[in-house]
Amino acid sequence: MKIKIDELRNKIEKVLSSTNYSQEQAKAISEVLLYAELTGKNTQGILKLSGTEPIQGIKPEYEPKIVKETKLSALIDGGGNPGILVSHLATKMAIEKCKEFGFGIVGTRNTFSSTGAIGFYAGEMTKNGFIGIVMAGSPGAVAPFGGMDPVFGTNPVTFGFPTEEWPIIFDMATSAITWYGLVRAKALGQKIPDGVAIDHEGNITTDPEEAMKGAILPFDKNYKGSGLSLMVEVFTGPLVGAAFADLEGKGDWGNIFMAIDPELLVGREEFKKQNTELIRKIKASRKAKGADIIHIPGWKAFQTKEQHEKEGEIEIEEELLKILA
Amino acid sequence: MKIKIDELRNKIEKVLSSTNYSQEQAKAISEVLLYAELTGKNTQGILKLSGTEPIQGIKPEYEPKIVKETKLSALIDGGGNPGILVSHLATKMAIEKCKEFGFGIVGTRNTFSSTGAIGFYAGEMTKNGFIGIVMAGSPGAVAPFGGMDPVFGTNPVTFGFPTEEWPIIFDMATSAITWYGLVRAKALGQKIPDGVAIDHEGNITTDPEEAMKGAILPFDKNYKGSGLSLMVEVFTGPLVGAAFADLEGKGDWGNIFMAIDPELLVGREEFKKQNTELIRKIKASRKAKGADIIHIPGWKAFQTKEQHEKEGEIEIEEELLKILA
Repeated sequence: MKIKIDELRNKIEKVLSSTNYSQEQAKAISEVLLYAELTGKNTQGILKLSGTEPIQGIKPEYEPKIVKETKLSALIDGGGNPGILVSHLATKMAIEKCKEFGFGIVGTRNTFSSTGAIGFYAGEMTKNGFIGIVMAGSPGAVAPFGGMDPVFGTNPVTFGFPTEEWPIIFDMATSAITWYGLVRAKALGQKIPDGVAIDHEGNITTDPEEAMKGAILPFDKNYKGSGLSLMVEVFTGPLVGAAFADLEGKGDWGNIFMAIDPELLVGREEFKKQNTELIRKIKASRKAKGADIIHIPGWKAFQTKEQHEKEGEIEIEEELLKILA
Repeated sequence: MKIKIDELRNKIEKVLSSTNYSQEQAKAISEVLLYAELTGKNTQGILKLSGTEPIQGIKPEYEPKIVKETKLSALIDGGGNPGILVSHLATKMAIEKCKEFGFGIVGTRNTFSSTGAIGFYAGEMTKNGFIGIVMAGSPGAVAPFGGMDPVFGTNPVTFGFPTEEWPIIFDMATSAITWYGLVRAKALGQKIPDGVAIDHEGNITTDPEEAMKGAILPFDKNYKGSGLSLMVEVFTGPLVGAAFADLEGKGDWGNIFMAIDPELLVGREEFKKQNTELIRKIKASRKAKGADIIHIPGWKAFQTKEQHEKEGEIEIEEELLKILA
């Protein structure tokens, strides 16, 4: 059913502030969940308030602690707080450092549950005219190319680039299907697509439960996707002191947030201008047969969000709204 | 035929220093070509001294110029010098800045011909204990997902991470086949694999000549590969003031070199130690059916290089050695 965006925001904040979070924290978490809903990435939206580990049910151990800080960097111990809250803090710090020195890199570890839609944080960086790079670690789920054990996380990575109009936000999991894709198929009694996962013995399976006991494949089912997954594993594990190659899924989750100021090179305005021209050139080129649109990362999300904001309301499944009751 | 590595090095240096380069420049270019040969990436090796644009035939316009410099960054106008020479300089500067401040980013533009095996430069950064990231721009050759015009370059990207043993060097083109792959197939009268390229009208083709008039597809033939190709396009075009979406192939080529010091986060020694442990864990996991080895980027290249260096000689096709005569 249709619901006013403001009403949805209020409901989310109310659910969150009713348990372990302050008004301000509830606002911060809500912002990221709402971003996911408005941009159409609803697996990262209010769904995060349901299931076996709803965000409002997380009991943080202690306030996030900065365990190391330099001019260009910080390392944050998340204290068991939700990934989204700690990611907000990390993003803010990366932006502040980038404003002052042209580059900021912030690592986090010991957060609970996921970071939500990581495109949000890269988007915050682009609002300042910066390049944003964010990677999120997670428990072992993906087999390296040539292997059959779930060594790597599903390891999403996002790159954000400012333009004179909407930001380019490229956001991808390095796995052929997300973990949530398995969870959802299992819950609905559905099969998963052929060729995206293997069972514990290394045979291709379309049964989500068997895939959970086995492993997901890299997104291209090949060595390049596997290498990119390894890259995210290194940035979110060894580099920040978090778990990695976490086959038992018991370690803590690490993330990395980087902001780069184009003033270091061509300059902020020139960078935006040329990125806008790049988009124009892509749009001016010929479409493939049968294609409605040439894929430009962030474009569809931006349009979807603008449409929702113009209408002031959004369609949410009634079942999901019950979470917020 | 087998040739002593030292003899090969001398021959390469002699060819180069006989034309437009000083002894020192010839040495620098030779080092990268030899690296390609020793690691088995021989399409980036002495082949670059043949064809229609051999490196020794390049007439640089002027010495590379630093057109902008900050503590963390530099922007180099390559002056029409070979990509390899300018890349050496950029790598050196990125490492120096990273040593002093923990981060270095150097962009180049206006270079001639390719940068060679970009894994080499990332490898130089890992020798200092740094993370190395290098991307290389090139004329339009790849169609974005949903498009059929060659908007993006073949856009290789490499990530290097130090370990306690050999470095992890992940090196990939974001295209389904390299431009050289087309050139080689055409020269040998061979077909290219099915599904990696389209002709000018957007139909899948296995004819390399038709593919050259058309476009190569992203490596996964999908939106993720296309997004990664766009990422390299932005870093090597708009960010450094070089050409981009260069459909006519007339613009200048840009590159980006980044070094990140792990001291900004967990520290250099801890980073190496945990990366080594990550490799150990990958190797200890179960191999897929029929797989000889679990793919770890850089491992095969390292082994190949070590073997050659142990033997002191390398097998080079006689035809190729004629280039050096």
